[in-house]
Amino acid sequence: MIRVAIIGVCGRMGSALAELILKETDLTVVGGVEAIGHPSVGTPIGNGFITTDLNSIISHCDVAIEFAIPEVTIDNARICARAKKPFITGTTGHKNLDEIKIYSKDIPILIAPNFSLGVNLLYKLVSDATKHLIDFDINIVEVHHKLKRDKPSGTAKRLSAIIKEVSGREVPIDSIRAGDIVGEHFVIFSGPGERLELIHRAASRYAFAYGAIKAIRFIVNQEPGLYQMTDVLKYYISGV
Amino acid sequence: MIRVAIIGVCGRMGSALAELILKETDLTVVGGVEAIGHPSVGTPIGNGFITTDLNSIISHCDVAIEFAIPEVTIDNARICARAKKPFITGTTGHKNLDEIKIYSKDIPILIAPNFSLGVNLLYKLVSDATKHLIDFDINIVEVHHKLKRDKPSGTAKRLSAIIKEVSGREVPIDSIRAGDIVGEHFVIFSGPGERLELIHRAASRYAFAYGAIKAIRFIVNQEPGLYQMTDVLKYYISGV
Amino acid sequence: MIRVAIIGVCGRMGSALAELILKETDLTVVGGVEAIGHPSVGTPIGNGFITTDLNSIISHCDVAIEFAIPEVTIDNARICARAKKPFITGTTGHKNLDEIKIYSKDIPILIAPNFSLGVNLLYKLVSDATKHLIDFDINIVEVHHKLKRDKPSGTAKRLSAIIKEVSGREVPIDSIRAGDIVGEHFVIFSGPGERLELIHRAASRYAFAYGAIKAIRFIVNQEPGLYQMTDVLKYYISGV
Amino acid sequence: MIRVAIIGVCGRMGSALAELILKETDLTVVGGVEAIGHPSVGTPIGNGFITTDLNSIISHCDVAIEFAIPEVTIDNARICARAKKPFITGTTGHKNLDEIKIYSKDIPILIAPNFSLGVNLLYKLVSDATKHLIDFDINIVEVHHKLKRDKPSGTAKRLSAIIKEVSGREVPIDSIRAGDIVGEHFVIFSGPGERLELIHRAASRYAFAYGAIKAIRFIVNQEPGLYQMTDVLKYYISGV
Repeated sequence: MIRVAIIGVCGRMGSALAELILKETDLTVVGGVEAIGHPSVGTPIGNGFITTDLNSIISHCDVAIEFAIPEVTIDNARICARAKKPFITGTTGHKNLDEIKIYSKDIPILIAPNFSLGVNLLYKLVSDATKHLIDFDINIVEVHHKLKRDKPSGTAKRLSAIIKEVSGREVPIDSIRAGDIVGEHFVIFSGPGERLELIHRAASRYAFAYGAIKAIRFIVNQEPGLYQMTDVLKYYISGV
Repeated sequence: MIRVAIIGVCGRMGSALAELILKETDLTVVGGVEAIGHPSVGTPIGNGFITTDLNSIISHCDVAIEFAIPEVTIDNARICARAKKPFITGTTGHKNLDEIKIYSKDIPILIAPNFSLGVNLLYKLVSDATKHLIDFDINIVEVHHKLKRDKPSGTAKRLSAIIKEVSGREVPIDSIRAGDIVGEHFVIFSGPGERLELIHRAASRYAFAYGAIKAIRFIVNQEPGLYQMTDVLKYYISGV
Repeated sequence: MIRVAIIGVCGRMGSALAELILKETDLTVVGGVEAIGHPSVGTPIGNGFITTDLNSIISHCDVAIEFAIPEVTIDNARICARAKKPFITGTTGHKNLDEIKIYSKDIPILIAPNFSLGVNLLYKLVSDATKHLIDFDINIVEVHHKLKRDKPSGTAKRLSAIIKEVSGREVPIDSIRAGDIVGEHFVIFSGPGERLELIHRAASRYAFAYGAIKAIRFIVNQEPGLYQMTDVLKYYISGV
Repeated sequence: MIRVAIIGVCGRMGSALAELILKETDLTVVGGVEAIGHPSVGTPIGNGFITTDLNSIISHCDVAIEFAIPEVTIDNARICARAKKPFITGTTGHKNLDEIKIYSKDIPILIAPNFSLGVNLLYKLVSDATKHLIDFDINIVEVHHKLKRDKPSGTAKRLSAIIKEVSGREVPIDSIRAGDIVGEHFVIFSGPGERLELIHRAASRYAFAYGAIKAIRFIVNQEPGLYQMTDVLKYYISGV
């Protein structure tokens, strides 16, 4: 049984993950962390409670996973490193990962700005397609709900960076904001008389919670070091 | 200048290829082959003529490419082998490739049932996605014009075989026959809260002619041996 | 303020509707109905309580909306008719609507097996396209989660019936069951050199709850009679 | 047998139409018109010849159809009016149609900047959807080959104008230029929890030639007056 501590357990991602973990037989939630003053502090979650201090639950867990603000990540990494517990951060917006990297000498640390298995695989497929379809035009289109503030999306920017890295090419991104669409990314390779379209559609936050579960099962089996979702993808490989 | 002989030069594929080659500056058509009795036999094509016998033009060319019936492939391979000319067969329906393989000791031979770069890359991407998205459902949908006789398409069967090879799984194929649609293949990976769709759309036979041109430029630089479109894909790789 | 009673208020649809109504300023929930023995009976909902008997709350509401089993619809319609309250049934699987129709002499009754505005509009658009694209091929494809029991979906069957009604034609339906996809319907019209695709994608049950809210606002302004979602669509028309 | 004169018979559209007409049993080409100096002038076409002057063939035909430059349309309309022959113009870019309209007192005149049945039906469906889905977001995306000079496409502008006319709303248009894509238009209506996508894909110029044939069969049965493709759509209606 893998015992999980969730930092930011009452947020959208944290609560979706807790809900999903409680349905799995090999995982359990042993505690959550929320900010001081949050109304849920002190209430039970899984086999433990919601607290304001990771230190108070770190010894009960096998892994800590964080959905928070970038300012707290370094503290959480330090607490995990001292307790020799693997650490996963799903927090986005880190400006500098150097400090975090230091702790990866002591524990396995996974940095995952996006837990979706599909998006992470899309990165790889787009890299491959860009390499091989050298004289095809490439277009990125991303579609998200109207409340999304960044434009283009982080995922579209990452796709664009991958294409540039592989081929030196800058490609146009079209951003569409409409309704309550969770998030869709289209990468279109157009060549003479043919087209290849690689499309990812996120339908609910379970895509991310599910990927986080895969990440948890992965990280508890790793040596100290710095890991990415690419490593998680490689870990789960089907074979006959 | 690469001098090309086209076997089956008046067919849909052969004529599309001839048309495209004549627009390229590094390629030229030095002759075509058609069946005895074909009305075009004796008429000019590129820098040569349409004949009924590959022997009569083989010495003028640097490479021979065939779009024909499977029964003649072995003869064409033998003629190329004797003349030490690379040979490409785009013919489909070969039951046994063993005899053809013998000649690949003497010359480079490329066997390409489908010249589309996009389709050949799709095979690779589908293999990768199947390996990594181990508990996603997989569906294949293929859409073609109403006159298409085989169902499912050869490409859909190949995709299905790749998925089986990689994961041991049998996946459902839906075949839609409508209008004059050239050919589309959808491979859909559906997981919890997300979906990855890999789509290929062929719009015209130029997709195939264009891939054939890539294959010609590739094969004239190879050592004797047996090659596939996968090798052509690997040959053209972008880099910074 | 429109006061709503929700029959089946704890089901997937009922609870989604209650949640949405409580965010609207012109609507309120004044009570819910659930089966005898349901754990929520007696608990509060909106401005009222969950009861087992519609009779006990009917006088407090301006409209009753039902998501239940077909066997109870006739009783609910009778209760509404006696109290002169408009009645909406979102229940599916009715074998005979004759009895329900009787009560439409006394009150406005809306029968809505699917509240989605998009699906109901799709019915109209498909009817139009079938009428006008007389020699195009037509294909229906529907995609739903693996747990869906009926195949093809009720919506696909309705689309097929509309096409038959308008043109006398039987069209093929492809049903794909994959992942947790909420529900998608594709109607594809393929003609010489062109294609028209009419696609509906349901992303969450809010599509249905939102349509139900539109239906509630519509029905409270109607004369006695039998209504369909088509009438709701016509009621909300933009104009300059 | 309907005898057709094609003005601009050697252009892309004119030649595609001639090719298609010659396969039909109820239609024949009795002559073509091309500009002075065109190499094909004087060569045979169908049952007649290619000439530089519509006057010389107008008496042999039952209908004249034009794919030309806007400057010549008025002259062609006048020649048709004098000869009492129906006139179809598929020419685009007319700045003023007033003069043309004068001749519609004498003959039926069809003005068709786009002969595609699918596109013309899309206009109608988009108008309907805009009317009924009053609080859905609307987005237009159009995709065309890289050589296309206008951006957005004429069809996208027309779609946008229809939406404005019906609802007073301005909607964003995304234009994608890639490969050799013939032309695709997406109109996406995004509402709470659902989406309706109306998509037109042109695959070849046969879409336009086929619509032109429908237009020819329509116009020869009309009274004098001014007609649009909408009237052609209404003329061909399936019924049981």
